[in-house]
Amino acid sequence: MSRELIVLGTASQVPTRTRNHNGYLLRWDATVTLFDPGEGTQRQMIHAGVPVSAVTRICVTHFHGDHCLGLPGVIQRMSLDGVSRQVPVCFPVGGAAYFERLRHASIFDDRVEVCPLPVPESTDGSLTLVLDDSTSATTLFAASLRHRVETVGWRVEERAGRTMLPDRLAEYGITGEAVGRLQRDGASTVGGRVVSIEEVSVDRPGQVFAFVMDTGWCDGALALARDADLLVCEATFAEEETDRAIEWGHLTARQAGRLASEAGVRRLVISHFSQRYPDVTPLAEEAAREFRGDVVVAEDLLRVAVPSRQRL
Amino acid sequence: MSRELIVLGTASQVPTRTRNHNGYLLRWDATVTLFDPGEGTQRQMIHAGVPVSAVTRICVTHFHGDHCLGLPGVIQRMSLDGVSRQVPVCFPVGGAAYFERLRHASIFDDRVEVCPLPVPESTDGSLTLVLDDSTSATTLFAASLRHRVETVGWRVEERAGRTMLPDRLAEYGITGEAVGRLQRDGASTVGGRVVSIEEVSVDRPGQVFAFVMDTGWCDGALALARDADLLVCEATFAEEETDRAIEWGHLTARQAGRLASEAGVRRLVISHFSQRYPDVTPLAEEAAREFRGDVVVAEDLLRVAVPSRQRL
Repeated sequence: MSRELIVLGTASQVPTRTRNHNGYLLRWDATVTLFDPGEGTQRQMIHAGVPVSAVTRICVTHFHGDHCLGLPGVIQRMSLDGVSRQVPVCFPVGGAAYFERLRHASIFDDRVEVCPLPVPESTDGSLTLVLDDSTSATTLFAASLRHRVETVGWRVEERAGRTMLPDRLAEYGITGEAVGRLQRDGASTVGGRVVSIEEVSVDRPGQVFAFVMDTGWCDGALALARDADLLVCEATFAEEETDRAIEWGHLTARQAGRLASEAGVRRLVISHFSQRYPDVTPLAEEAAREFRGDVVVAEDLLRVAVPSRQRL
Repeated sequence: MSRELIVLGTASQVPTRTRNHNGYLLRWDATVTLFDPGEGTQRQMIHAGVPVSAVTRICVTHFHGDHCLGLPGVIQRMSLDGVSRQVPVCFPVGGAAYFERLRHASIFDDRVEVCPLPVPESTDGSLTLVLDDSTSATTLFAASLRHRVETVGWRVEERAGRTMLPDRLAEYGITGEAVGRLQRDGASTVGGRVVSIEEVSVDRPGQVFAFVMDTGWCDGALALARDADLLVCEATFAEEETDRAIEWGHLTARQAGRLASEAGVRRLVISHFSQRYPDVTPLAEEAAREFRGDVVVAEDLLRVAVPSRQRL
């Protein structure tokens, strides 16, 4: 099972020589979520070595061009490549007219079954359940963010499970198919004795991924990031540009660090950099002053593992 | 005065590692025409070192994605960069609904004055006058092509002029401001004698650029390419794929060569290659078997001069 983030693009507003417009793939076992396909995403996926047909669902935070203009190319490529399963596309309901334009932006042989999932606004920073995915045993949540246009962030939450303890299983003489029965039924009779799953395993909380783009500081961002193993967070500006960040509805790198810290995040990826920073090292340092966990600076085509969960 | 083609992208249908979707800039003195902005054009222009704000007009042959999905990014970048002049966007009238979707594909601070110029279909391969451009003393024509969707090709024609002959001017003792008067008025009195411009100059036909994409063999393509100094022509397939070319409404490389030859073209640029040809040398060889002039194979970011015109 491979769970990783594949960064496709990292530029805010305009691309640069080294940074494409946004684009982030989350590979979570067989579920591949594409977040914010900016212009050029189709080609960035070639460079990343992931076929567009591998994408199982798409999430768009909002309809500024740097977060969505790659959507037509991705959908049309799916159609060309004969993707036959349904493809949910999730986006804030306020952007539905833009979704429709992008969905039918140019002429193509339209054979892909795109399922629009518009997400309503939430006013109090609460999470909205968007999709339950049985393939990966995860749930996709959204929460409204605070930007100049209707924007939502995303949270992927794995269902909690249990980690079997080999020592205990051996102690009770449980082997082979009996392990599967125990996991399925919660108990098993071994040598005339009923053994419950609690006796031979421990709780394993689900892994959590969160995606927070284009927002000022808000409750929604905190709710999304809460206890996330991996948080991708915009860090458009340095702290010295705080006024500009507030004016344009963005976070500073320092705020991204503080968000990760307050939410109890394990690994933070900062991205969505303004072109004014050819070197983003100072942004990483700012974030690291607030957050003691891993700080990763997003670069195009970087891969970042979702940290594996510890047993409780 | 610089007159050159700057190739931004050369891939048919889907991009590859080395070929972006289509995109072609024609720099003609102060007039910069962007043809067929495929997805990623905005970023390819960064690599080419030409700011999007330099583009003075846009021509779209048709609304398949590989020829137009970069339009929103280009328009939005113009708006961001404060382009204050009018920007004509020319396209086949049958694609007007797609133009409107692309024009308003995502949310942005819309301050650019885009002037849509839909071009009607022509049935007999005749040229339609689209724009007279006084800045570059050129006229933009269109003609309908034969593709699966409504498609037009483009032709830029410089107005004919005269080349002054220094020897003759000296012979008649015409110097300084008198030369300008002669050019403006067509005649000048020198030492009591009326000298006509014909006596001291020769005809100079205007330069011609033609752009023929996505079409089967047709009269429109021939009319566009007639006597062109530089012709950009699609050559999606090799001759052995002729059946496929006909089925999909495309030219083979051999046909591109024949078109250039029959139309009396001086320099031919072939482009819009199917991804099935990682090496397009055989396509160039095919075209060269039909056409004795220069055959140039388009590569992303290649620059090709418009050959200067000879005196008649």
